[in-house]
Amino acid sequence: MALLSPSRRLRRTPFSDGVEAAGVKAYTVYNHMLLPTVFRSVEEDYRHLKEAVQIWDVAVERQIELRGPDAGRLMQMLTPRDLRGMTAGQCYYVPIVDETGGMLNDPVAVKLSEDRWWISIADSDLLYWVKAIAHGWRLDVLVDEPDVSPLAIQGPKSDELLSRVFGDGVRDIRFFRFGVFDFQGRDLVIARSGYSKQGGFEVYVEGGDIGMPLWNALMEAGKDLDVHAGCPNLIERIEGGLLSYGNDMTDDNTPHECGLGKFCNTHSAIGCIGRDALLRVAKEGPVQEIRAISIDGPPVPGCDRWWPVTSEGTVVGRVSSAAWSPDFDTNVAIGMIRMTHWTPGTVLDVETPDGTRRATVNRCFWI
Amino acid sequence: MALLSPSRRLRRTPFSDGVEAAGVKAYTVYNHMLLPTVFRSVEEDYRHLKEAVQIWDVAVERQIELRGPDAGRLMQMLTPRDLRGMTAGQCYYVPIVDETGGMLNDPVAVKLSEDRWWISIADSDLLYWVKAIAHGWRLDVLVDEPDVSPLAIQGPKSDELLSRVFGDGVRDIRFFRFGVFDFQGRDLVIARSGYSKQGGFEVYVEGGDIGMPLWNALMEAGKDLDVHAGCPNLIERIEGGLLSYGNDMTDDNTPHECGLGKFCNTHSAIGCIGRDALLRVAKEGPVQEIRAISIDGPPVPGCDRWWPVTSEGTVVGRVSSAAWSPDFDTNVAIGMIRMTHWTPGTVLDVETPDGTRRATVNRCFWI
Repeated sequence: MALLSPSRRLRRTPFSDGVEAAGVKAYTVYNHMLLPTVFRSVEEDYRHLKEAVQIWDVAVERQIELRGPDAGRLMQMLTPRDLRGMTAGQCYYVPIVDETGGMLNDPVAVKLSEDRWWISIADSDLLYWVKAIAHGWRLDVLVDEPDVSPLAIQGPKSDELLSRVFGDGVRDIRFFRFGVFDFQGRDLVIARSGYSKQGGFEVYVEGGDIGMPLWNALMEAGKDLDVHAGCPNLIERIEGGLLSYGNDMTDDNTPHECGLGKFCNTHSAIGCIGRDALLRVAKEGPVQEIRAISIDGPPVPGCDRWWPVTSEGTVVGRVSSAAWSPDFDTNVAIGMIRMTHWTPGTVLDVETPDGTRRATVNRCFWI
Repeated sequence: MALLSPSRRLRRTPFSDGVEAAGVKAYTVYNHMLLPTVFRSVEEDYRHLKEAVQIWDVAVERQIELRGPDAGRLMQMLTPRDLRGMTAGQCYYVPIVDETGGMLNDPVAVKLSEDRWWISIADSDLLYWVKAIAHGWRLDVLVDEPDVSPLAIQGPKSDELLSRVFGDGVRDIRFFRFGVFDFQGRDLVIARSGYSKQGGFEVYVEGGDIGMPLWNALMEAGKDLDVHAGCPNLIERIEGGLLSYGNDMTDDNTPHECGLGKFCNTHSAIGCIGRDALLRVAKEGPVQEIRAISIDGPPVPGCDRWWPVTSEGTVVGRVSSAAWSPDFDTNVAIGMIRMTHWTPGTVLDVETPDGTRRATVNRCFWI
């Protein structure tokens, strides 16, 4: 692995001091900010995530705040998901599309009240898109990036750990709902959500100054639970089919190609900017789609570029994320496959840097 | 320095194979893409840049292409620089501002023809802003990211090297002008520009497939000129006062604060989105501004966060970039200083990770 040169442009987070003290080994850069990727090793972090509880610095999930009378209208312009049934206190996973139906981001929208929303973004400057849409359409809404940094608590012991710091009320938070809880006199939004399939929460830490106090309180409270600093885990997120914007999809892809058709209500999402462009694909379906793919053989190297997927020498897709899974004893991967070859059980070739490997299209993801 | 985890999301460039073969030691991430930062060492690369010639993979300077009848109108909406006098064949450094006058990017605009422009961007997804403005204002213009990757040739021997590959015509290109030159049957835009003060060119490589052929042709042609792979050099760019978006300025800053008032014609740039917001600052001047700052003592550590600048204990600014300069035998730095303390010769304190250092506001940058 290459080294990462430090600069102010690669922003630190309110939790960076804790991350460094915990012995972070590698980073990636996400929304112009440092995101840890390895603490002990990717495989050790994976095992621990499935058995204990971890604290994740996911401050890189920057928020876009919409505030004002047109906030709800603007939110609906951004996504083909119908938001009419959404109430304050709910979180929705929302594909964001441009006027051609291309994916610009795949954030979680947090509805704080009728006229106040947070959009918890993946890796792109969605703020620029949202600000310009508000400007161009002359909407009566304030759009900015507030001082809010999510801290995730993930793993089977998350309820136990979080209840020790915030009280037993957190146990009652339902999936993709949030409540407001006190920490040192501050009201914090806590949602049952996160970028793993092991259960847990995301605390929206409002005010960078309480970042380290909260980090330390959680570490202290969880000593006997074997709490450890962690981060989104490459293996576990592929097993769980959690897509990564920029890896598994880009602005070339529609939500339907990404398997996100279930989050699109293209007919009823009136006002969505990309609605016209998506009506046809919603009706006829995409010609390529995200699939879980098993790759035979020993552990594959890191997937730092698209690996072509071929059938009898013809390219029929690409792999965008891949890792060896200890639990499933195979290489797990995410790829985009053309409809001619996406039937579960189809055997294909993947061109990895280590040579061509046999691969199989799965019926579904592993967890 | 920490390690950087590879992933497809951190895009490779058409020149990455050459960069790796040349022994790149560290990267940063810029526009979701890998940007080399060190080959031999920052100080060796610096010395070599000033004495010989380097090939830089600056594919991270992604292009935004504007094409269509409203291309020129859209370009003027983006910037407070008056573009009426600009002719095809010219490049302009253009601050890009939002409706509040905040900097969104500081790219170079390349006017290919009346209805076709490239915007060669710094590190932010300006494409999102430009696409949404075109959409919101219903402009008749196509906006996208073409397959164009700049390759810079920088250093005192740049004219000699480039003329060996493209012919003596390149010697006649004037500063911030471009010509079109043939390489293997392909027309390439070549501008006299680049992110150093050592002279040189940027070749806008259209079509990733000719990236490595051109890289190899330049390396081969320059063997006796001591050509080497290089990259924007931290020390040299601070000496030259070349600002870095995300380091030295953010969307909190107006162009005037960044010392870019000379690129703003706020009165005559009719149509500029941020014009109203900038009229007052253009008239009264900013209350803080970018300054060259010398920091006393031994070499400072890497500047990975803003260092507070104080006077008698009160914060009066911040340093955002700093490095030891062998040629000027001092630490050179770029900072934003309040008007009460920005007079050349003012002595201030800078709080570095190594402790407080004495610093002086300079009259101008070093080169």
